[in-house]
Amino acid sequence: MSHNFEDDLSGFAETLEQVLVDLIGQTDTDRVRAAMAHAVLGGGKRVRPYLVARTAALFGIDQADTLRVGAALELLHAYSLVHDDLPAMDDDDLRRGKPTVHIAFDEATAILAGDGLQTLAFEVLVDPETHEDPAVRADLCLGLARASGVDGMVGGQMRDIMAETAALDLDGTLVMQAMKTGALFRFACDAGAILGGADNTARDALRRYAGAIGTAFQIADDLLDRKSDAATLGKAAGKDRDRGKATLVDLLGDEAAHSRLDGLVANAEDAVSGFRNATHLKALARFIRNRER
Amino acid sequence: MSHNFEDDLSGFAETLEQVLVDLIGQTDTDRVRAAMAHAVLGGGKRVRPYLVARTAALFGIDQADTLRVGAALELLHAYSLVHDDLPAMDDDDLRRGKPTVHIAFDEATAILAGDGLQTLAFEVLVDPETHEDPAVRADLCLGLARASGVDGMVGGQMRDIMAETAALDLDGTLVMQAMKTGALFRFACDAGAILGGADNTARDALRRYAGAIGTAFQIADDLLDRKSDAATLGKAAGKDRDRGKATLVDLLGDEAAHSRLDGLVANAEDAVSGFRNATHLKALARFIRNRER
Repeated sequence: MSHNFEDDLSGFAETLEQVLVDLIGQTDTDRVRAAMAHAVLGGGKRVRPYLVARTAALFGIDQADTLRVGAALELLHAYSLVHDDLPAMDDDDLRRGKPTVHIAFDEATAILAGDGLQTLAFEVLVDPETHEDPAVRADLCLGLARASGVDGMVGGQMRDIMAETAALDLDGTLVMQAMKTGALFRFACDAGAILGGADNTARDALRRYAGAIGTAFQIADDLLDRKSDAATLGKAAGKDRDRGKATLVDLLGDEAAHSRLDGLVANAEDAVSGFRNATHLKALARFIRNRER
Repeated sequence: MSHNFEDDLSGFAETLEQVLVDLIGQTDTDRVRAAMAHAVLGGGKRVRPYLVARTAALFGIDQADTLRVGAALELLHAYSLVHDDLPAMDDDDLRRGKPTVHIAFDEATAILAGDGLQTLAFEVLVDPETHEDPAVRADLCLGLARASGVDGMVGGQMRDIMAETAALDLDGTLVMQAMKTGALFRFACDAGAILGGADNTARDALRRYAGAIGTAFQIADDLLDRKSDAATLGKAAGKDRDRGKATLVDLLGDEAAHSRLDGLVANAEDAVSGFRNATHLKALARFIRNRER
């Protein structure tokens, strides 16, 4: 993996951090905002906002003009983590090496902070400051809603929970993951395409890219989870296995999981091969694979 | 209170019900959708959507062209009730005479159903089917986000929870209620104004109307809560008092609460006196006062 890519990703994360700080606003006298800040600031690789920026760049859009859209996506992602960590859901105490929101604050505050993060994500997207054209803002908002609602992230999370009592097979697990995790990756790339005014051919290519890296990300995550412990991962490891839920890696087997991961990364690189300057997107696909090495 | 008004309101609720049924979609094989349907269908007076329809009517907008906007508002209101009822929040088992979502389903499903209802509210608002002009859709979406986020409903709910340990005075309680309940009433009227292309004078008048009925609604609710029992109210009564939280009625005293309620209703009627055909809005203000009689 190129050293330049890691620098690019971490430099981007620093730039995005300031946008998120500004969007969350004053936290010192506001308990919900403080909990939202705890959830969203100071951690995370910001892969989804990075995808927005680097796909938009394919169409000549300045990074600065993508940051609020990426930040909205990160706010939405953070809300899903806060709610997933709740005692009634995954019951996790640790996230990115820090206490989860319901541990650092309390459960009621965590529910409200998650709710407020979701609202803020939509507020940021439709704010005129995000884009001058209301049609673009409405498109972005509709895309995020579809990706994160009952036919996307929320529906995927429900299927994941139900898998604890009625195990999913490989196809069921792939669909669940495509909804739970994949939908936001697809929207991240689609958002870049919307900002860039991409034609249908370009949008389809980016959807194929996003679909491939979404599943690749999940397999890499499962592989990482399997061999990590809580200390290195910054969150509780091996939880899915403890609950009897089969991961993609369990269902595929270790060897097939690795070869599928390689295939997905190749598919991702191939999907964007028609663009000039897709270097960053290709490097991101390889970075996802190499995370677990 | 006029018999005609009650007929108008209940007839409207029936019309809206079908819109909500269509928006939630197939529930038979989808647990989150089933929980969302449980939360939002078959109950509620639909006062907020009614406000959207009757304020838009002031500007000649057909009721049919307001229903999706009203439905979005009702979906958002329903999400807030589902989350407020959770064990970590108000811990209510009963809502509109039915088991709350976390009782009828489970806590994880209730969290996700609330999340999905919020997402669906925004999805419905920005969908091209709601209005042909993306600028109108983006305006509606921004208004709903501001009304329901940390500076509105979510922030009000946080203040309400914190009031259990640090009591609010009258002004603090008024602000909390204006955020928690009033903001959605204000947005309902503003949404009608946006759909109607209202000028600033008309929008200001409707904001005054909405501010007055929002507080009136809360005082009437407190008065109702004080004298009802669970059987007639369909939810647990007297809960705020049991927790040592002072309601507006506690802080004002019974007599002053009644006279303030009368004053607010008069203010509401006055605010819309410049419109022809504000009959329904005036009747709604009187209906809110008379609820507790």
